[in-house]
Amino acid sequence: MKDGSAFLNDNALSIADAMVRDAERLRIAVSVGPSGARLIDAGARVTGGIEAGIRIAEICMGGLGSVAASFNQGAEKWPYTIEVRSSQPVLACLGSQYAGWNLSTEGYFAMGSGPGRALAHAEPLHKTLTYRDQSSSAVLVLETAEPPPPKVVEKVAKATGVQPQNLTFIYAPTQSLAGSVQIVARVLEVALHKAHELKFPLDDIVDGAGSAPIPAPHPDFLAAMGRTNDAIIYGGTVQLFVRGEADAAHELAEKLPSRASRDYGEPFREVFKRVKGDFYAIDPHLFSPAEVIVTAIDYGETFRAGGRDFGMLERSLG
Amino acid sequence: MKDGSAFLNDNALSIADAMVRDAERLRIAVSVGPSGARLIDAGARVTGGIEAGIRIAEICMGGLGSVAASFNQGAEKWPYTIEVRSSQPVLACLGSQYAGWNLSTEGYFAMGSGPGRALAHAEPLHKTLTYRDQSSSAVLVLETAEPPPPKVVEKVAKATGVQPQNLTFIYAPTQSLAGSVQIVARVLEVALHKAHELKFPLDDIVDGAGSAPIPAPHPDFLAAMGRTNDAIIYGGTVQLFVRGEADAAHELAEKLPSRASRDYGEPFREVFKRVKGDFYAIDPHLFSPAEVIVTAIDYGETFRAGGRDFGMLERSLG
Amino acid sequence: MKDGSAFLNDNALSIADAMVRDAERLRIAVSVGPSGARLIDAGARVTGGIEAGIRIAEICMGGLGSVAASFNQGAEKWPYTIEVRSSQPVLACLGSQYAGWNLSTEGYFAMGSGPGRALAHAEPLHKTLTYRDQSSSAVLVLETAEPPPPKVVEKVAKATGVQPQNLTFIYAPTQSLAGSVQIVARVLEVALHKAHELKFPLDDIVDGAGSAPIPAPHPDFLAAMGRTNDAIIYGGTVQLFVRGEADAAHELAEKLPSRASRDYGEPFREVFKRVKGDFYAIDPHLFSPAEVIVTAIDYGETFRAGGRDFGMLERSLG
Repeated sequence: MKDGSAFLNDNALSIADAMVRDAERLRIAVSVGPSGARLIDAGARVTGGIEAGIRIAEICMGGLGSVAASFNQGAEKWPYTIEVRSSQPVLACLGSQYAGWNLSTEGYFAMGSGPGRALAHAEPLHKTLTYRDQSSSAVLVLETAEPPPPKVVEKVAKATGVQPQNLTFIYAPTQSLAGSVQIVARVLEVALHKAHELKFPLDDIVDGAGSAPIPAPHPDFLAAMGRTNDAIIYGGTVQLFVRGEADAAHELAEKLPSRASRDYGEPFREVFKRVKGDFYAIDPHLFSPAEVIVTAIDYGETFRAGGRDFGMLERSLG
Repeated sequence: MKDGSAFLNDNALSIADAMVRDAERLRIAVSVGPSGARLIDAGARVTGGIEAGIRIAEICMGGLGSVAASFNQGAEKWPYTIEVRSSQPVLACLGSQYAGWNLSTEGYFAMGSGPGRALAHAEPLHKTLTYRDQSSSAVLVLETAEPPPPKVVEKVAKATGVQPQNLTFIYAPTQSLAGSVQIVARVLEVALHKAHELKFPLDDIVDGAGSAPIPAPHPDFLAAMGRTNDAIIYGGTVQLFVRGEADAAHELAEKLPSRASRDYGEPFREVFKRVKGDFYAIDPHLFSPAEVIVTAIDYGETFRAGGRDFGMLERSLG
Repeated sequence: MKDGSAFLNDNALSIADAMVRDAERLRIAVSVGPSGARLIDAGARVTGGIEAGIRIAEICMGGLGSVAASFNQGAEKWPYTIEVRSSQPVLACLGSQYAGWNLSTEGYFAMGSGPGRALAHAEPLHKTLTYRDQSSSAVLVLETAEPPPPKVVEKVAKATGVQPQNLTFIYAPTQSLAGSVQIVARVLEVALHKAHELKFPLDDIVDGAGSAPIPAPHPDFLAAMGRTNDAIIYGGTVQLFVRGEADAAHELAEKLPSRASRDYGEPFREVFKRVKGDFYAIDPHLFSPAEVIVTAIDYGETFRAGGRDFGMLERSLG
């Protein structure tokens, strides 16, 4: 993107600056970290909240998506819902929101999400996504309880070409309200990521939207992670608008829902226990919305597959 | 309206200027047309998208309405929905949004929509609507695949009293995503227009809102037009808040739904074929929402009629 | 709150100033009242509307809440709905929105709502709420058909320490559209207020949201008041996110719904008649949402109680 308004990190910086101005009402804590990087704690030593989570989700999408919380009375016991939409879903979700940048170092585990990734271009995914952002600032979101140590700040500064004092790191653990919200707001992103794994051409995905229930955060990390995953796997709905052949759209719709995965059918926490915590032993195709609608705009055809599973939500979300 | 913030073309210009700034992310193309008029292609030679369609819909309403896309799980197979509301429904929908200004010329067919109409006052409807906008700019929206030729630009400049270089024309065909969205966002407008045809006093309509499913765009013009109409005719809901006698509100509710039309009961495309494409042979009362709620605020009574017809949506929207 | 953006009266002043700029399109009337105070009539001698009501509701919450109108197809005959959410529910709802400041004087009855209350600290509730706003302006909302007389303006100026010409009073009667909307937007506030009466620790309530149908305004005060109450009592849903013991959250969920009140089961108007208009003879626990979801975030447990009662909505809202 060349137009000024569309630089992802600049967009995210504006939203982050507004969060800092509203820090007290959002119950977040702002501090100066290693090498002068700005740190925003949105749920570790602070309470944070749903509004903070919504803003983090919009930051994750580089300002190219809309995120809202609303009541959806068609969702049985879980009416309070996160809705996400983007008319640049590939860039917003895969180029920016996907937590794909491994920023772990000794004693610190974190996958980087947010538009800083589109400056660093440090992941295999960026061979497919040619877009490279331009900005003198970078914003990253971390699903952790600890701020990034000096080595991580250095690594990000180097990879993004941004001065450390122009870096913003926002972190909130899975167990927090803001964490839950920003993770569930990935309902559209997981659909895009699985579409990519299914080798559906990303350039053909032109618009998209999704919704998923807001789960109760859980103080136990595994339970919290299980719930945010299950909110999407058993309670998420996504609609994609794609170019190209109707057959390809049809096939995408059939393969995209979580139901098409061999690991579908028990709460994520149980799956995780069964594989003894070996994340990579889980079928990656499990990470997708329950209900999928794919519209082939060049042919005017719509394909639907999967469906929300309220029984499984009951077992996981309570 | 006398207060500065309420001039319809000025409102629309702000939204259009923001679209131009965001051109790349909205996938729209901006160019300079005849006599220096600004042209925005939102779906003809470009892909556009749902966000572009939402902004066009707000431009159509002269900034006096809110348009949003959201998931409505009560809408069966078509949860992704456009919602529109306005506390100035007559001015927003009839004064501005209604595609009532015939701008066709040899070899070019287009009905003008948007606040430029409220400057030109060129239609019979403007005998009823006394409001005349004031602005040195004019914005018009055209449901076409071709930009306006020089003669149309001249005609609009003359009728609106605006310099050609201060005119903005936004166009998107019925077959595009943005086109589908901005047309379905007329769910409230068609209710207002039919109320006017039923001779309900427009001054008595003080507030309103509507929703309709977003249909899959179709590459065939007739199919695309059929679907956008059917999304409203068989899937639209509108609530109007009216002053005056409860009996008048009751009668309006009974007559307003599409079900009250003799042409109700088959997909619009079939109706269109049956009359051999003679638009004027179709019962104009067909163009209205499926479900209507009219609230008589002076009496505290609410009247409901019609209902969404998911079987017909199935036949038309797929 | 110390950060500049969070001063409740300053937030409310921005929203009120925007209302004044948009006065004509909102159909509200702005005038200068006693001692130079600014008066905004949003529904007494003017028509007002839903948009005005939404903005008043956001003013009532001191800018710390989001208020929106949308269609909720899961709400049977009353799909048009007000949704409210806040990540500072105690401050937004009890510190500001609650109509708890008695501003009545001879021949004038009004309970003050809005952020001016957080300057005056004139109520028993402010012994619990230690937050005190700082501003050179104050905004108050009155559910009345008459503007405040000189004595009320004086009283407010004195209690808030604000110059009379820096006071803004917005008033709209229960019978008006804006009145209905801003009252129903109290669905979250009534839950907070009842939680306080049940002695649930307010500091433990960290986030919340609610929804309730928009009732038809009624020209009769009692009927109008009955409907706005019933929209919440029989049609409202609230979710609270609380800290602390799961047992306390469970108990709160059980006691919070209107169903737990001895006066549940007839339209509010009938209850009011039965007690011969003695408001204080009504069980205060009746004033609460129909359906309550309480999530104990420290334990990851969610408790649900009550339920919407469409039969009662039918009897009251029509």
